[in-house]
Amino acid sequence: MAKTYKIAVIPGDGIGKEVTPWAQKALEKAAEGVADFEYEQFDLGAERYLRDGTILPEEEEERIKANDAILLGAVGDPRIKAGILERGLLLKLRFDLDQYVNLRPSKLYKGVTSPLANPGDIDFVVVREGTEGLYCGAGGAVRRGTPNEVATEVSINTAYGVERVVRYAFKLAMKRKKHVTLVHKKNVLVNAGDMWQRIVDKVAEEYPEVSHDYLHIDATTIFLVSDPSRFDVILTDNLFGDIITDEAGAVVGGVGYSASGCINASDEYPSMFEPIHGSAPDIAGQNKANPTAAILSAAMLLEHLGFDDAAKKIHKAVEADIEELGSTVRSTDQVGEDILNRM
Amino acid sequence: MAKTYKIAVIPGDGIGKEVTPWAQKALEKAAEGVADFEYEQFDLGAERYLRDGTILPEEEEERIKANDAILLGAVGDPRIKAGILERGLLLKLRFDLDQYVNLRPSKLYKGVTSPLANPGDIDFVVVREGTEGLYCGAGGAVRRGTPNEVATEVSINTAYGVERVVRYAFKLAMKRKKHVTLVHKKNVLVNAGDMWQRIVDKVAEEYPEVSHDYLHIDATTIFLVSDPSRFDVILTDNLFGDIITDEAGAVVGGVGYSASGCINASDEYPSMFEPIHGSAPDIAGQNKANPTAAILSAAMLLEHLGFDDAAKKIHKAVEADIEELGSTVRSTDQVGEDILNRM
Ligand SMILES: CC(C)[C@H](C(=O)O)[C@@H](O)C(=O)O
Ligand SMILES: CC(C)[C@H](C(=O)O)[C@@H](O)C(=O)O
Repeated sequence: MAKTYKIAVIPGDGIGKEVTPWAQKALEKAAEGVADFEYEQFDLGAERYLRDGTILPEEEEERIKANDAILLGAVGDPRIKAGILERGLLLKLRFDLDQYVNLRPSKLYKGVTSPLANPGDIDFVVVREGTEGLYCGAGGAVRRGTPNEVATEVSINTAYGVERVVRYAFKLAMKRKKHVTLVHKKNVLVNAGDMWQRIVDKVAEEYPEVSHDYLHIDATTIFLVSDPSRFDVILTDNLFGDIITDEAGAVVGGVGYSASGCINASDEYPSMFEPIHGSAPDIAGQNKANPTAAILSAAMLLEHLGFDDAAKKIHKAVEADIEELGSTVRSTDQVGEDILNRM
Repeated sequence: MAKTYKIAVIPGDGIGKEVTPWAQKALEKAAEGVADFEYEQFDLGAERYLRDGTILPEEEEERIKANDAILLGAVGDPRIKAGILERGLLLKLRFDLDQYVNLRPSKLYKGVTSPLANPGDIDFVVVREGTEGLYCGAGGAVRRGTPNEVATEVSINTAYGVERVVRYAFKLAMKRKKHVTLVHKKNVLVNAGDMWQRIVDKVAEEYPEVSHDYLHIDATTIFLVSDPSRFDVILTDNLFGDIITDEAGAVVGGVGYSASGCINASDEYPSMFEPIHGSAPDIAGQNKANPTAAILSAAMLLEHLGFDDAAKKIHKAVEADIEELGSTVRSTDQVGEDILNRM
């Protein structure tokens, strides 16, 4: 009998609510016969906050933690001050559940038009640190609102936190083209940059087959446009990872094709899978959003649980769908059905 | 009689030494009859540091300050640990000379091939704050080299520092398409981001003709690829400005066409003009580097001193050169001569 996995579902805001059901359906269908899923829906995000002022009550967070994995849609709403939901819900989960690997593959699918004239063969993965850096929430302000205001943001980086994600990147590279590119700004951020570089150099000694190099974040944004096929595994911190994965998403034809995993690679807490796009309030509620990234996040969830064959079913269906119909304008539901029919 | 201006010249490292003489020649020729220049050469950068261990002696910095403007080539050398020359020379000058506006125009010239399939009409300016944020050098490390190491980087932002650069951006927008886009990450960096947004909203009230909007840094990297012609004036902090101006440089066909000004808009200290490209050690000494960005930085210097017509001469010559010969492989000296011959 197939084992049953408990999945917490947090559709969140805007198009998150429209694409997440398709991630669930894809999960079901791909794992038919090998795994069963039991879903627990969580009503978290803008609507809930506007209704009763709560963002992520402790009791609900505990229930989320009791699941085997999390499917998340998107978080963010223009009616709510920037940062409240992001820090109170999305980042709180990433931090509290110690999801230190933020895994973000970028692939240019056949049938997708890249904005680049000569994109080449793009297929790399960004391993973004997920629990440190400028995302810690350290910092503050004095004399707020006066001409003498001072506001700070503190990037906190630990050898413990960096080493575990560096190890993950090198292990991942062994299964790929065996190349790791560290991205940082070590010529300016000398404390954090120096530590990242030293730890990469140290861990690299254990992986003699994996080559590695270094690029400044500014130079990286150039190569993502001029020569994106040079990359295999990009390893970087929380903020730089946020920035380059959006640029990478654009380069492979839009963030509508990019999924991500917020992974607790030590399995102490559930990992979370989400499209990298946001809640897109401008097109929300119109059955227009592309559910492909959400469906691909279901494939990442399956891989994480060890169901590689089931994940492959999703990848194959998505690839075939994009190759044939990628340039056709379709509704959310149409794309979802088309992909499911191929599985 | 034409007034004489004193110009400090710091060719620096790598290709900086090859392109800076062309900036000087362009300056001379463009200003013939309207201004004279007296140059003071400074031997600063990697060679000097390797020879006698000095980076920027106080006495030399005082002499630099006594000039009317500075022409800089590039700083950085692979033989020297990242950060030493950048922080000790380039950033030290930007900070000590309070060059709080880092002005970086991006323009797609006719005749240049953009890596984008449909680049559109790209012509925007990034106004990057130059004396605050993560570039302050605040931060440190404890237990360096141990498994318990903690490294921090602190972003310091002041209302004083932000407001002056915000004002500059709105003033500049009045001379352009009257639109300012603030770029930050205010949904995560809530202290600094909130202050930037409040100050922008406040200053905007004094410029009712200028419209303004806000983009997260990650979304900005997408639009720079998918729709770069939407931008007019981009206003942002030190680190985000560093990142997006390199991406913008790539999008307009390579940083070889992008100049920048580190401007003390209060004129207490000389402003500094430099190409945005680096020292490019891989092609240094081969007469291969494109001097166009350096030559354009001479035009920015002329504009700064009030010689708009002379600056236009350079712009016209560069535009004509690129349109006719932009795709031809030429040596540094050939491009320099071609541009000068057109002036
Ligand atoms: C919504 C925001 C806090 C988040 C981030 O910055 O990590 C998003 O941009 C992402 O990349 O997942
Ligand atoms: C060399 C480096 C310190 C510098 C910066 O980060 O500002 C450079 O990248 C630039 O953009 O001028």
